[in-house]
Amino acid sequence: MPQFTVRFLPENQEVTIAEGESLLQAASLAGIPVRASCGGKGTCGRCRMIVREGAVRQVQTGKLSPAELAAGHVLACQTFPEGAAAVEVPEETRLAKHQVLLADEPQGEAGAPPETDPLFQEIPLQLAVPTLEYSPDDAGNLLAALRQRTGLADVRIDYELMKELPLIVRQGDWRVTVSVADLKGCPEGCPKVIGIAPGWKKERYYGLAVDVGTTTVVAALVELGTGRTVAVQGAFNQQAVYGDDVISRIVYAVEQEHGRETLQKAVVKTINGLIDQLLTETGLSRRDIYAVVCAGNTTMTHLLLDIYPDYLRLEPYTPGVFSPPPVSAAGLGLQVNDRAQVYCLPAIASYVGGDVIAGARVIEIDRAQELTLFIDVGTNGEMVLGNREWLMACACSAGPAFEGSGLRYGMRATPGAIERVEIDPDTGEPVYHAIGYQKPLGICGSGLIDLLSALLKAGLIDRSGQFQNGGRTPRRREGEEGPEYVLVWAEEAGNGRDIAISEAEIKNLLRSKAAIFAGIKTMLKKVEIPVEAIERVYIAGGFGRYINIRDAVAIGMFPDLPAEKYRYIGNSSLKGAKMVLLSRRVRDEVEELAKKITYLELSAGNDFFDEFVSALFLPHTDLSLFPSLAGSGA
Amino acid sequence: MPQFTVRFLPENQEVTIAEGESLLQAASLAGIPVRASCGGKGTCGRCRMIVREGAVRQVQTGKLSPAELAAGHVLACQTFPEGAAAVEVPEETRLAKHQVLLADEPQGEAGAPPETDPLFQEIPLQLAVPTLEYSPDDAGNLLAALRQRTGLADVRIDYELMKELPLIVRQGDWRVTVSVADLKGCPEGCPKVIGIAPGWKKERYYGLAVDVGTTTVVAALVELGTGRTVAVQGAFNQQAVYGDDVISRIVYAVEQEHGRETLQKAVVKTINGLIDQLLTETGLSRRDIYAVVCAGNTTMTHLLLDIYPDYLRLEPYTPGVFSPPPVSAAGLGLQVNDRAQVYCLPAIASYVGGDVIAGARVIEIDRAQELTLFIDVGTNGEMVLGNREWLMACACSAGPAFEGSGLRYGMRATPGAIERVEIDPDTGEPVYHAIGYQKPLGICGSGLIDLLSALLKAGLIDRSGQFQNGGRTPRRREGEEGPEYVLVWAEEAGNGRDIAISEAEIKNLLRSKAAIFAGIKTMLKKVEIPVEAIERVYIAGGFGRYINIRDAVAIGMFPDLPAEKYRYIGNSSLKGAKMVLLSRRVRDEVEELAKKITYLELSAGNDFFDEFVSALFLPHTDLSLFPSLAGSGA
Repeated sequence: MPQFTVRFLPENQEVTIAEGESLLQAASLAGIPVRASCGGKGTCGRCRMIVREGAVRQVQTGKLSPAELAAGHVLACQTFPEGAAAVEVPEETRLAKHQVLLADEPQGEAGAPPETDPLFQEIPLQLAVPTLEYSPDDAGNLLAALRQRTGLADVRIDYELMKELPLIVRQGDWRVTVSVADLKGCPEGCPKVIGIAPGWKKERYYGLAVDVGTTTVVAALVELGTGRTVAVQGAFNQQAVYGDDVISRIVYAVEQEHGRETLQKAVVKTINGLIDQLLTETGLSRRDIYAVVCAGNTTMTHLLLDIYPDYLRLEPYTPGVFSPPPVSAAGLGLQVNDRAQVYCLPAIASYVGGDVIAGARVIEIDRAQELTLFIDVGTNGEMVLGNREWLMACACSAGPAFEGSGLRYGMRATPGAIERVEIDPDTGEPVYHAIGYQKPLGICGSGLIDLLSALLKAGLIDRSGQFQNGGRTPRRREGEEGPEYVLVWAEEAGNGRDIAISEAEIKNLLRSKAAIFAGIKTMLKKVEIPVEAIERVYIAGGFGRYINIRDAVAIGMFPDLPAEKYRYIGNSSLKGAKMVLLSRRVRDEVEELAKKITYLELSAGNDFFDEFVSALFLPHTDLSLFPSLAGSGA
Repeated sequence: MPQFTVRFLPENQEVTIAEGESLLQAASLAGIPVRASCGGKGTCGRCRMIVREGAVRQVQTGKLSPAELAAGHVLACQTFPEGAAAVEVPEETRLAKHQVLLADEPQGEAGAPPETDPLFQEIPLQLAVPTLEYSPDDAGNLLAALRQRTGLADVRIDYELMKELPLIVRQGDWRVTVSVADLKGCPEGCPKVIGIAPGWKKERYYGLAVDVGTTTVVAALVELGTGRTVAVQGAFNQQAVYGDDVISRIVYAVEQEHGRETLQKAVVKTINGLIDQLLTETGLSRRDIYAVVCAGNTTMTHLLLDIYPDYLRLEPYTPGVFSPPPVSAAGLGLQVNDRAQVYCLPAIASYVGGDVIAGARVIEIDRAQELTLFIDVGTNGEMVLGNREWLMACACSAGPAFEGSGLRYGMRATPGAIERVEIDPDTGEPVYHAIGYQKPLGICGSGLIDLLSALLKAGLIDRSGQFQNGGRTPRRREGEEGPEYVLVWAEEAGNGRDIAISEAEIKNLLRSKAAIFAGIKTMLKKVEIPVEAIERVYIAGGFGRYINIRDAVAIGMFPDLPAEKYRYIGNSSLKGAKMVLLSRRVRDEVEELAKKITYLELSAGNDFFDEFVSALFLPHTDLSLFPSLAGSGA
């Protein structure tokens, strides 16, 4: 089969592909992360490239104007080189290097003292010196010393280590340092001695906590002896090349040849990239990382572990496994110590995964006296409601609108993202702030909440999200996609284009916020508890560096409760993963916590749909649910 | 380095060796099992071969007469080819194909009902069909069904199986057959699902119970569903080429390059040979064998698992591990199902191993109300004393005399071995019986006991084992090694030689029997219990097909108790291994039993030595210990 060279610009990176392979596949080979929300179906129009040299065959999609086509613009997923080619990848097509927002620290109950029983430990031991009267076996001698020193019972020694054990204990003159890994309590894998060195070592050892998000992967390098986070890095999940959301990835995994393998390798490559950065930053070696804890949604966990995922998306939404066993990191392809194991936090449903359970543990919802609501807004919205008496969870397909997907100028909370918006009700003129004090490139979650609330307060849109009698400001205009509001004029923008939000996009946001509120209401209805009974609300998610709770209430996304009842806890998935990494006790508690939660399937029955339709207004059809807004413009 | 071809006769088997390698190494390469009791040191003189063609370099040992040397006789371990050579291996140099004695079945308490919870099981399951209201994960669904069906909790599913689990459960329309392996209770390895097939399978599955003896290895193929033994095979342990006893093997393992590997491979080759025979006999495939249980002494277990063994033989005699974890059969090199694991019965000391613990379980000594003594006479003598209240064990280096080693005409209980002897006190003429009604080749353990007792009764030897005033029979003569008694004249013998026992050999047997009796007495002394308090004695070991208890008492080997208190239980090591193979419960009980036994180190203190010296008479210095013999010639 003929093979062609594709050179990507401006980096001049060359790869060789076979005839019939697309430019998107070529970019993936070249390691260039490309936006391809639809998973390469030609429907999202985001994988735009410009062919500078060479002949290509294109499938027409109608996504490109004749002028664009004439200028060499193509959709990478629908374009197949027919010879050597040079192709430019514009900045807006690329998944940007992700800026991680670390400032947010857990508040409230999460400020527990540091744990001292990490999933991997190196423990110096003094063994008994055998005599004719007392001659235990070397293995038993070691385990007895370990039990005496740490209280750890039921430990086993890796068979391979037993082979040289008699020599090692004598080399160290009955002093050894044992490496104990304990990634999951019995029955799923007991604490295990995975290393024995003669003498007493005094080296530091590290673990990795990973938030495996659908869009973003964040990894923290943690010194296990002290609990100190020594470095954190984030990156876009390279699986995004194969689809923006979990559904398109599952479809890719099961329908494409080697799809599962491709996605598994993509997320492993993402994590390995983060590991590289963390090691470069700290000067450590991959051998220093002895344990990995991952928190991800159920799909991410299935794809990471290469577990057949199709039934996650098919009714009745059945995962292969809720609580996976610890898995060899080397087996998965992770570039850490060869003996390291990977523990994935347990899920409780196809759409309530380890990331949500991590957050539930961070806020210790299972110990709360007060009725507590936890809302994790990511690509989907997941909620846990309850206290130490009972717990319930649900997931609603809120869609990724608040993560910046599905909107022309939506973006993640990276530099250039508008994170705060106000609009002068008289003039319709906005005031905004973009992250990094850069020229704006788009709008992130917190900015979108602000914008929606501001448009409503300024009377530019009505309660159904429709634009009101325009003309008061030139920013309200007819765009290509219908009515829109221009938040940033092209000359002020970093990308040289008008940054606008259309009525269709507002409706998209409305559906997202309605899904979240409807989920909350459906759970409350199930237990016959009114909204105002909620005493504490924790918000997690990637909105940005902050979230304006008043605005989120004003648009009817969150319940109308006093602001002091709300806590924004940022990336609780990463925090929970780190807590587990640092404590066998917490790990056990997380498994228990997961078992205590009753899952409410929103697609069973009509309650959720009814609530959803009622919530498709700003803030809601039933204004009595939002008493604090009574005096406002709503 | 030059290489030479060595051709072995009469089989005409050729191998290539490097310069400097011995004929013994060449024979090992050729798969010809050779007697080499001293481990290739040139001291035992058993590896005699005859060089028919080619030049060799010999290290002189003084073991061969000038006439033998002139006839081309060499010791294989001290002979190094200097070019292509043809070498005859005489029949007497070869380790004979082993005849297994299967007739002996356990008696008494050992006749427990067959167990129904084998270490490997295939279990058909009906899973719940998930709905929107009840959608467990596939893994949890399977484990719940397994728990409901079998009561098995704390089971884990092999990670690799989880990957395709969602497909498999649906292929079988929620019916699956799971393969559950459970080779050792938590914490050492929980029950584990190692196979999942769609639908309900109805195939038979098998396990292997192995008695890994220093000299002989016996394997039983057992149908796990029914507990039926379908075939048994035995063979000499191919490690014997590297030394007759455990000490010489340990020395070989640690002092020779690749010594441990060589010995590990030798025993694995032995077991694989038995597997081949078992499969040929039954028409089964290696894939049908899903679990392996081995019972062996502590050295055999260390060598099988390649655990550094040197400290087993060095004071204070410390094993690497008493209770090894289950180990992959494939990893060890055993040719059974790739998923099979090997469980080795636990030891309690360097010289009280899994074979003894197996026997202790067979007789259920830990449940006995009566004071019970268990004596396992193999290459060493091991004893367990006690009842359900307390248990004590010891080991004495009885030496392999009763196994036929260390005597010119000693042999295992194979065809041609004299197993019964009587001597007419008047004429000094013997009556004997050889196994297989063949012309006799030597004397096995039970024959030696009879012979010693008969020589004493006939007044041919005195109580110290010295020959008495000879001349009464021509069989009492001066041989090459001093005074001897000729049991078989050359013309009646299968090997054309006089089969005789010398005074030195009698002294050897005396030391063996004295060590056993002294071990028993030392234990009794420790707990301040008289000999006559023993209510039950179980004898195990490879004496032959039977043992004459009266004669064994007459020579002072076993305590003077009524014959009805004795039971001969044959190969209790194999029986115990089979019981464990068939029952998780028994496996757990064996681990518990091992922990209950207090080990008495006989080399600590002088008690054993004093008892040993007193027992170097026939039957003993203290005749009051043998009241039943008072009226006899003793």
